[in-house]
Amino acid sequence: HLESRARLQQLAQVPSVTPDGETLELAANISSVKELDAALGSGAQGVGLFRTEFLYMDRSRFPTEEEQYEVYRMAAEKLQGKPLIIRTLDIGGDKQLDYHELPEEENPFLGFRAIRFSLSRKDLFKVQLRAILRASAYGNVQIMYPLIASVEEVREANGVLAEAMGELEAEGVPFRKDVPTGIMIEVPAAVAVAELLAEEVAFFSIGTNDLVQFTLAVDRMNEQISYLYEPYHPAVLRMLRAVVQAAKRRGIQVNVCGELAGDVRAMPIWLGLGIHELSLSAQAILPVKETMLRTYARESRALMEEIFKLRTAKEIRDRLERFHAEATLAAGNVRPGV
Amino acid sequence: HLESRARLQQLAQVPSVTPDGETLELAANISSVKELDAALGSGAQGVGLFRTEFLYMDRSRFPTEEEQYEVYRMAAEKLQGKPLIIRTLDIGGDKQLDYHELPEEENPFLGFRAIRFSLSRKDLFKVQLRAILRASAYGNVQIMYPLIASVEEVREANGVLAEAMGELEAEGVPFRKDVPTGIMIEVPAAVAVAELLAEEVAFFSIGTNDLVQFTLAVDRMNEQISYLYEPYHPAVLRMLRAVVQAAKRRGIQVNVCGELAGDVRAMPIWLGLGIHELSLSAQAILPVKETMLRTYARESRALMEEIFKLRTAKEIRDRLERFHAEATLAAGNVRPGV
Ligand SMILES: [Mg+2]
Ligand SMILES: [Mg+2]
Repeated sequence: HLESRARLQQLAQVPSVTPDGETLELAANISSVKELDAALGSGAQGVGLFRTEFLYMDRSRFPTEEEQYEVYRMAAEKLQGKPLIIRTLDIGGDKQLDYHELPEEENPFLGFRAIRFSLSRKDLFKVQLRAILRASAYGNVQIMYPLIASVEEVREANGVLAEAMGELEAEGVPFRKDVPTGIMIEVPAAVAVAELLAEEVAFFSIGTNDLVQFTLAVDRMNEQISYLYEPYHPAVLRMLRAVVQAAKRRGIQVNVCGELAGDVRAMPIWLGLGIHELSLSAQAILPVKETMLRTYARESRALMEEIFKLRTAKEIRDRLERFHAEATLAAGNVRPGV
Repeated sequence: HLESRARLQQLAQVPSVTPDGETLELAANISSVKELDAALGSGAQGVGLFRTEFLYMDRSRFPTEEEQYEVYRMAAEKLQGKPLIIRTLDIGGDKQLDYHELPEEENPFLGFRAIRFSLSRKDLFKVQLRAILRASAYGNVQIMYPLIASVEEVREANGVLAEAMGELEAEGVPFRKDVPTGIMIEVPAAVAVAELLAEEVAFFSIGTNDLVQFTLAVDRMNEQISYLYEPYHPAVLRMLRAVVQAAKRRGIQVNVCGELAGDVRAMPIWLGLGIHELSLSAQAILPVKETMLRTYARESRALMEEIFKLRTAKEIRDRLERFHAEATLAAGNVRPGV
């Protein structure tokens, strides 16, 4: 195990390119600046998802603008120009605050969460956006809104962002005026209107965890039906394809930041569909990279054409497994990419 | 009010046809045989949704095959050859049984419900299917599975149906051997794989209530976010369109049985997309019919082309309102269809 870890570690500095020369960026999901070191040590090409809710949890009041700014700036500086996508507060659902009671809900996953909370508390939302904007003077900072379901929500969020920019401008505080804003694609509605949303934002990041839950109407935490939580469901793959197609038509970037991104079996899906970037936990980066270094994009595209003809998740999983077995065999004893 | 009620009542026997000669069948949603009389009095052309869960609720044990058979047969006979679509048990979510405890769930709408329950209790499921099959000898009975999310679930349910048929056959009990089976389309996954599902079943019935909930990730019972429950969301309309397109490609029928079907504002959506049948509460049938009798299918199709270019639910609702205002104006004082 130690040996394989050392072997993987050698891949950290290898360019993130398939054998047939296509790139797929590997970025990190982080919840704190501390986690950034491990991510960079594994060769992360940026942060695709900074989960800011952990700044809001484990304390006794909402963090101030100054407190947030310090954290975001530190992360931006450590990244030295690599992208830092900061997701605005994604509270609610199964994530609660000790000091601010959210209403009891019958179905919290379908409830008052994420951007819904932020848009209902624009005062708090603006504090966060000001902190992010101020940090944007120190690196390649980008903003991402969670749980977007409509064009209206993006516009409303961007309206608060514009206000925050106006204030900072008036105060003479520096920030990046063209800070890119993107959205999580994790609500089925966002998939269905991806073509409309693509005109409002600079990038999409597909959150597979929630997207699979809502698409299948399955709470992944519910043990009674966990067998129905199936990321390789043909419906999920069709939704991924629809998002990529909409993004490509408008020329915007599509990332994937859910758990599925860290599943090495899914690599031909990303290469086959033409995803730009995966955002992964630090420990998933190198295993995923190892798989990428021996997966041909061309073969992945052909595989996806086959896979879109299959009717069940089991058929899809079996086909992916066969693809990997053949790729491993073809790679033989050659250490890929080294 | 009485006068307008009497005027509406005259429409009960008028053929259900648009001014330009296209038909849209109007069937009823019922929860008991008692409700069938009111529905037939309003000119219902059949039952598009018999909610059988009420046979299972308000009692102290599961209903026997004989008890269910009596009810289904009575409904079939009353309908005298008009279609009777019986939905298999749709328990769970917010519908519980006193005598059979379902597990406590964090998100019951995303939980152990409907066909998931039936497939986990094939003994109970088979009792219901046997009762329905026996009733099928007495009318135009059809079977509908709720909350279908995959091809596998349909096949598994049909497997139990085949077993029930085999048993009845062996017992020499008469039933309709080609009883049509259909599914509710109410899970976003079912929309995404509608083309695959259409090869497994004889009809679709779109359940707008759950479909809107899952598509928007909004619990419609949650007051905190009820403003986000929006059936006229452009994503919902795109999903309706996708379902109709898949069904048409395979030549199967598409009905709509959610609450949206009873909203007269939605009429041009059904005519424009080419829905076959609406299934409505008894009191909604005549108001919906009145609207249909003055709504041109041709104009509805043109309207939908416009509507699919709009970006927000508000724009869509406004456009629908304008369409209705113009149609009412055009109809003038002429009593439509009489
Ligand atoms: Mg999420
Ligand atoms: Mg339902």
